[in-house]
Parts: sequence; structure tokens; C-alpha cells
Amino acid sequence: MLINDPATYAAVEKAFDAYEVALTTNDVATLDALFWNSPHTLRYGATENLQGYDAIREFRANRPGKKLMRAIVDRSITTFGHDFAIANITFTRPGESRIGRQSQTWVKVAEGWRVVAAHVSWMDQ
Amino acid sequence: MLINDPATYAAVEKAFDAYEVALTTNDVATLDALFWNSPHTLRYGATENLQGYDAIREFRANRPGKKLMRAIVDRSITTFGHDFAIANITFTRPGESRIGRQSQTWVKVAEGWRVVAAHVSWMDQ
Repeated sequence: MLINDPATYAAVEKAFDAYEVALTTNDVATLDALFWNSPHTLRYGATENLQGYDAIREFRANRPGKKLMRAIVDRSITTFGHDFAIANITFTRPGESRIGRQSQTWVKVAEGWRVVAAHVSWMDQ
Repeated sequence: MLINDPATYAAVEKAFDAYEVALTTNDVATLDALFWNSPHTLRYGATENLQGYDAIREFRANRPGKKLMRAIVDRSITTFGHDFAIANITFTRPGESRIGRQSQTWVKVAEGWRVVAAHVSWMDQ
């Protein structure tokens, strides 16, 4: 298994960075574009469990676009072969004392790199 | 991209089920064997963020082996190609009113199917 091939890693890092900018600026169109358009796509958020692209899109459309800014504390990206990757971060947010964690699994589908599963949570203290 | 190839799906489901049994019976040796032996492996637990196989193994060795039983509410497994998969569940645990969520990314390495990233959390209410 090829781990962290430089070109693959760079492509995933670019997609990850685009997602992070879109998230913190509430660029919903870009967020939607970066998730895999499939009923298999899944996102566990801090306060919701969403199965399927449509459910995730609906959630984003109705979410208040404020207080999304955050600071990444630690980041770990690993790529497998040329088409698969995991991207994990811990983060802090103003006004929130707990540490946040975001896990993403990325797959290169025909349209490009897409998030196929995500999990966001605050760590219990 | 090949999605949910039956043989691949069956292999992942078997590995997933083995992990679940090992977790709820605190079969630490099996849990250790099913995680990828790599510094890239990562596990965000309910109360800890662990980077690297050694940190995960150390955590398991020191964790109380009680109150691990849980009931799976919903399960979603999706495979990509022949070597990559995501497995997500929501679950309940006696004495805990919140819904639990577990996300795993599985990769077929030389030794077999292994968890390369995991994230477990309780949903905020």
C-alpha cells in the first residue's frame, strides 16, 4: 500500500484547505461541492447525525452562518494509494472551552476529491 | 469507483463484527490486532485524542474493562474499490442518555483489513 505519495498528499491537502476556508466563511456552495453526492455519504456533527448527501445539504442550508471560526491545533493527513485519504484535526473555538475534533475520509471519485464521511465532536472533559 | 463490491463488503463486515465483539468483551489483543500498526493511525475517543498505534495500544491496556457493552442503533458500511471502506454506527449504552457515534476508516493492508482512523463521541444534547 502506497502511503503519503507526495502528489496525492498535495491534492488532498489542497482539498482539505479549501474545505476549511469554506467552512469558516460559511461558503455553503463549496461545502456542498466537496461532499460526495451519494446516499452513502454520512456526517456525524456535534449535535446531529446525518445520513446521505441530501440530508447534509439540507442541514447546511438551514444552519446559522455564524460562530463557525476556529483555530486548528493539530492536523494529521494520511493518503493510501492514489484515491483514498483520511484527514483529522483538533481545534479550538472562541467561547468554547472544550477541544473540537474533526475526522474526514476523502475519496477521489470521477468528479475529484470528495468527503465520503465526516465526524465532528467536542471532547468530553 | 467500485462501490460496495459484495466480496469486499462481506470482508469489511466480518472485520467490523470482529471488532465490535472484541470491544464489548474488552478483548484487547484482538482490538490491537485490528488497528493498523503505524504512527499514522489515529483515534479520537470520547475523552482522549490518540495519535499513533503505540498511544492507542497504551490507552487500551490501561482502560477499565467494564461498562463497554453497547447496542448498535444504526449501521452504515460503504466500501470503495477493493481496499478501502468506512463503517459508521450510532449506539446506546446502559446508563448513558446520549447517543453514541463511532466512525472507522478501514484499509486493506498487507496483513489484512485494519482500522486506520476512528472517532467515537457522544452527541451533544
